[in-house]
Amino acid sequence: MPRIQFWFEFASTYSYLSAMRIEELAVQHGVSVDWQPFLLGPIFAAQGWDNSPFNLYPAKGRYMWRDMERLSAQRGLPFKRPDPFPQNGLKAARMVLAIQDPVRKAAFVRAVYSAEFGNGLNISDDAVLGDCLSSVGLPVEALARTQDPAIKAALIEQTSTAQSKDLFGAPSFVVGDALYWGDDRLDDAIMMASTI
Amino acid sequence: MPRIQFWFEFASTYSYLSAMRIEELAVQHGVSVDWQPFLLGPIFAAQGWDNSPFNLYPAKGRYMWRDMERLSAQRGLPFKRPDPFPQNGLKAARMVLAIQDPVRKAAFVRAVYSAEFGNGLNISDDAVLGDCLSSVGLPVEALARTQDPAIKAALIEQTSTAQSKDLFGAPSFVVGDALYWGDDRLDDAIMMASTI
Repeated sequence: MPRIQFWFEFASTYSYLSAMRIEELAVQHGVSVDWQPFLLGPIFAAQGWDNSPFNLYPAKGRYMWRDMERLSAQRGLPFKRPDPFPQNGLKAARMVLAIQDPVRKAAFVRAVYSAEFGNGLNISDDAVLGDCLSSVGLPVEALARTQDPAIKAALIEQTSTAQSKDLFGAPSFVVGDALYWGDDRLDDAIMMASTI
Repeated sequence: MPRIQFWFEFASTYSYLSAMRIEELAVQHGVSVDWQPFLLGPIFAAQGWDNSPFNLYPAKGRYMWRDMERLSAQRGLPFKRPDPFPQNGLKAARMVLAIQDPVRKAAFVRAVYSAEFGNGLNISDDAVLGDCLSSVGLPVEALARTQDPAIKAALIEQTSTAQSKDLFGAPSFVVGDALYWGDDRLDDAIMMASTI
């Protein structure tokens, strides 16, 4: 089955849009999705940014929030701006790596994004992440895995892999050697994956 | 007739994509296009950039060139990277403001973008701009207008207006009070204009 790698960062607003639609789109085209969490912080830091570009560049930020409102409305998705922004997605990203079952993994990612950008909740809060786990049929106790040294190392490795693939933002999609950036390129990426 | 403002910068790669399709799309939806040249240099300088973000952030730049190759191929547009990049579009932008006839104005913009990104030519070269003028039925001598103090002032005013509208990149589209950024939003912007 053809595959697409979906590289997402939980702090990323446009990753929310892709997370909520990639699986349905992939299934329609006979493509399988590899869910790849990573952290943009180290990548941004390497290019001199100590914050989200949407905070560093205010006009770009004001536009992004308006754009997200419009796109969410078009797609029938709830949208609520979380405070603070960007959210700290470290524990959520580690949790994704600890979930083996691919169906539950994908459902957990969607649950976290829905909590964060659909309901404006703080996804670094254990209670919020616990609710996300429960909602996909996993025990709240699984959160302890986010302190597992092997899982911590796995997320660092994910971010290194993202850098080696020349990723600079999220969402990003990798099909073979081809990189696609942004929710606006998801359809092209899926089409490419389906024709390989 | 409903209107859309098309704000473009001649150095901008993605503005090429929009320039080559906006008029046909607008006509299909009964929308009239206002061609608005401006300079991104002062806007970028105000946020601390002394060069194109595609040069300042190399991974983003490498991706942009690949993305432009793919999108141009999809649309049957020739694409050749100009050297140097970004090109200096100052004279070309002034020339646009000096052309009154809206049909020739639009045709001149397309001729400049085609020279720059279709053929990789240097658009700060008077010979190149002269060929663009000739190709749309205007005399080469019209280039002298780019030294007219009133035209110079008009371009500075355009850039101030762009800043007052919170523009931060190109292409940008303005419909009433709504701002849309990027060739990926052109279709949404035209739809919005056609329903006002």
